[in-house]
Amino acid sequence: MSELEHFKALAAHAALAHVRPGSVVGLGTGSTAAFVIEELGRRLREGELRGITAVPTSLATDRAARDAGIPLVELGREGVDVAIDGMDEVTPGLDAIKGLGGSLAREKVVAAAAREFVLAADHTKGVSVLGERAPVPVEVLPFGHRRTAALLEELGCEATLRRTGGELYVTDNGNPVLDCAVPAGFDAHAFAAAVDRLPGVVAHGLFLGMASIAYLGGPDGVVTITRGAGGDGAAPS
Amino acid sequence: MSELEHFKALAAHAALAHVRPGSVVGLGTGSTAAFVIEELGRRLREGELRGITAVPTSLATDRAARDAGIPLVELGREGVDVAIDGMDEVTPGLDAIKGLGGSLAREKVVAAAAREFVLAADHTKGVSVLGERAPVPVEVLPFGHRRTAALLEELGCEATLRRTGGELYVTDNGNPVLDCAVPAGFDAHAFAAAVDRLPGVVAHGLFLGMASIAYLGGPDGVVTITRGAGGDGAAPS
Repeated sequence: MSELEHFKALAAHAALAHVRPGSVVGLGTGSTAAFVIEELGRRLREGELRGITAVPTSLATDRAARDAGIPLVELGREGVDVAIDGMDEVTPGLDAIKGLGGSLAREKVVAAAAREFVLAADHTKGVSVLGERAPVPVEVLPFGHRRTAALLEELGCEATLRRTGGELYVTDNGNPVLDCAVPAGFDAHAFAAAVDRLPGVVAHGLFLGMASIAYLGGPDGVVTITRGAGGDGAAPS
Repeated sequence: MSELEHFKALAAHAALAHVRPGSVVGLGTGSTAAFVIEELGRRLREGELRGITAVPTSLATDRAARDAGIPLVELGREGVDVAIDGMDEVTPGLDAIKGLGGSLAREKVVAAAAREFVLAADHTKGVSVLGERAPVPVEVLPFGHRRTAALLEELGCEATLRRTGGELYVTDNGNPVLDCAVPAGFDAHAFAAAVDRLPGVVAHGLFLGMASIAYLGGPDGVVTITRGAGGDGAAPS
């Protein structure tokens, strides 16, 4: 395991403290979520946890969770107790960018359905302001995607249609993604509100005010960001 | 042709006055739009109009327009000159509910891309306030649609999953529709803004502040609603 992988595993294990016997758990997508799935499966197999069911946020997570022996359910009206997911950037105020993995729409549905939304990643995902390194991914309808890109650019970003190996990338929902590079000092709340209003947009990767806590694994252990006072970034556990 | 059909045709023909030689035209979906397509095709065939291209808002409109000999293009970055579409309800202030036909998402993309958005229908679609008769259709992702219905109901409506003949209805985009019955006196702008922010929502049928003019065909001819002073509902042409 590389050092970065080790940091992700540390954060994933810390996040699993929020899962209690009988919890309905939203399972995120990506490299840190993979450690969550693996460890949750182990705890179930070894009897450390009981009565868990989980809602997967992607086809990939669905497969991994089945392989790990985690009982899966569809997302119901009542939501989930806790969702655990990775992110591409998180601020000391717990605002996040997600979606470089492409599952932003389902991840946001589950995060919004969770009584507790827990982020976990390696420490390189901590930023002082959003957009420092990551673009804001925006999932759009295939119909009119060129026009939707033009409307996004009118909001002041640079929108690039995501491709993988020359092919148009599509999400599990069958939609393309526009990666929107935002200028330094952009107003994330204003941008999110404007994108929410744009016809043709299915979901965007700004998760503002949604997370209740974030765990960042790094060389000094796990740093915890909590709500209030802009986080306690100086408290490795 | 029934009387109501005749009224729709009257409105459709009035709306076509906004199409000029060389226009790129957004073609709506539904029973009034069918008259727009038929008459536009006739004018092109008989040389009354030249140089038109059109963007269809549904697979059904795509087929009908091809049958009518109208040259079709994909929606480009530059949008369209004029979009003509029907609606389920329109107020004297030109706010509308659309989407009982199921094409709301594509119709909204095209309406928002139009320099001029023209509504046409029979006179029974005129209402004093939105929600009098029609529910607000909301297209949602299949993933988590039960949870999305619960969130919509928290906004104060009654959400019913649309079915056709016992089968789950899905749009051209492959998504289900929740028909949201709103209470008398609901605040359309506040509801629209709240729905825009909900994860899992692809599009909703509130078209607020988008139309520039509406034509309502009825027993006294065509009544025109224009912007400013709440419309001139007393001016049959």
